[in-house]
Amino acid sequence: MLSKNILKYLTSLQQKKYRQEYGAFLVEGAKSVLELLASDFEVEMVVATDKFYKENTRSLEKQPFRVEIATPDELVRAGTLQSNDAALAVVKTKSNDFLYAEEGEYVLVLDDIRDPGNLGTMIRIADWYGIRKMVCSLTTTDWYNPKVVAASKGSFTRVQGFYTDLGAYFEGHLASEVSVYGTFLEGKNIHQITFAKTGYIVMGNESNGIGSEVEKFVTDKVTIPRFGEAESLNVGIATAIVLDNWRRK
Amino acid sequence: MLSKNILKYLTSLQQKKYRQEYGAFLVEGAKSVLELLASDFEVEMVVATDKFYKENTRSLEKQPFRVEIATPDELVRAGTLQSNDAALAVVKTKSNDFLYAEEGEYVLVLDDIRDPGNLGTMIRIADWYGIRKMVCSLTTTDWYNPKVVAASKGSFTRVQGFYTDLGAYFEGHLASEVSVYGTFLEGKNIHQITFAKTGYIVMGNESNGIGSEVEKFVTDKVTIPRFGEAESLNVGIATAIVLDNWRRK
Repeated sequence: MLSKNILKYLTSLQQKKYRQEYGAFLVEGAKSVLELLASDFEVEMVVATDKFYKENTRSLEKQPFRVEIATPDELVRAGTLQSNDAALAVVKTKSNDFLYAEEGEYVLVLDDIRDPGNLGTMIRIADWYGIRKMVCSLTTTDWYNPKVVAASKGSFTRVQGFYTDLGAYFEGHLASEVSVYGTFLEGKNIHQITFAKTGYIVMGNESNGIGSEVEKFVTDKVTIPRFGEAESLNVGIATAIVLDNWRRK
Repeated sequence: MLSKNILKYLTSLQQKKYRQEYGAFLVEGAKSVLELLASDFEVEMVVATDKFYKENTRSLEKQPFRVEIATPDELVRAGTLQSNDAALAVVKTKSNDFLYAEEGEYVLVLDDIRDPGNLGTMIRIADWYGIRKMVCSLTTTDWYNPKVVAASKGSFTRVQGFYTDLGAYFEGHLASEVSVYGTFLEGKNIHQITFAKTGYIVMGNESNGIGSEVEKFVTDKVTIPRFGEAESLNVGIATAIVLDNWRRK
């Protein structure tokens, strides 16, 4: 059984201010916890059901973190999932440096993404297409929100997120000639774009798209062509289509 | 104020068995209701806030359906949205015929899609890429589920859904030479596919993909290439990428 203090600590991590205060976040569910244990994140504690512990004793025993046994009910009470009969972990947050694109690399830039499900989905898509660095505006939803972590399906272990003022971020780049792609209604058809070797892909807010502060740094406005009548695409869907087009030879 | 009977009728439509019994479904929120009023669906009743009614009197008055005024609280109680300060509508379901692909057309086929959010997203994506017909396995989640309607963002008014046994559906096609594309792990790279003029695109279950009953009718197995390490893509995301590749010239 979990002590009151541990339960209180775990539930506090559902809130951003306590994640920041403790420098820790929650990872929930069998798959995410197993991906986590295989990553280089520093794990502070794993809370596991008896069953999960028995099935993964080797991964859990060899590591220098605390292990607590709990019932599925307790896991649900401590975390944010509607059901969890496996485990959750408390993990130390990482602080990332300025993540500029290196030669031959692409960085995904998020301008004011508000929905945790969207951010998690975008991390997963970035991981599928081999993007390792994401730079987020300060208004973008918190990377360590349990809903973001869950929606990323383990990809949070492989993609780094960095939060900064995007204006200042791009200002620091003005000397170099760099390609910054952003999706706009009036851009060039993405089916006809030849992407530069190195660059940035900017995705904008769910309702308002890319803000004017960031727009002025976009060198190439692109558009996903529409063949029917839907008014728009979800920003996660749009990210996937842009990255798929970028990766085409 | 809504009468008890109306409220009971509206909440009953959250359940598939009553939608089938009454041949009606719910459409919620300002945007969806306005798209509905511009469509050829037969509307039975609109429940609107005073504000929404005043802003849309012309659309609401000229039509031969019942209009009720309600508070936002009542709309939330009657429907499934967490907030709704505009309107909801009761609409007659449509029954569609066998939706085979006509010359030059593509049909999207869903084999056992279980999540209403995914189905709604797929309807929206189909609409974006100009697909008008979707054929769903009998195990696919109900097209008229309020979550499907909401996630489709109005696209349910433009895309037709037809439920049938997919084995029998494709059997009826065996005589004609037709291209059926389906996503599999071991398919041909979708970036290198030249799509036929007329055809079917099959998307499979969230966990298990396309079932063996349907697989045997697939003429072209395709794969979305992966450049990183994410284990999989969400089925809505995958649908968007396949349709974007199909639409490329």
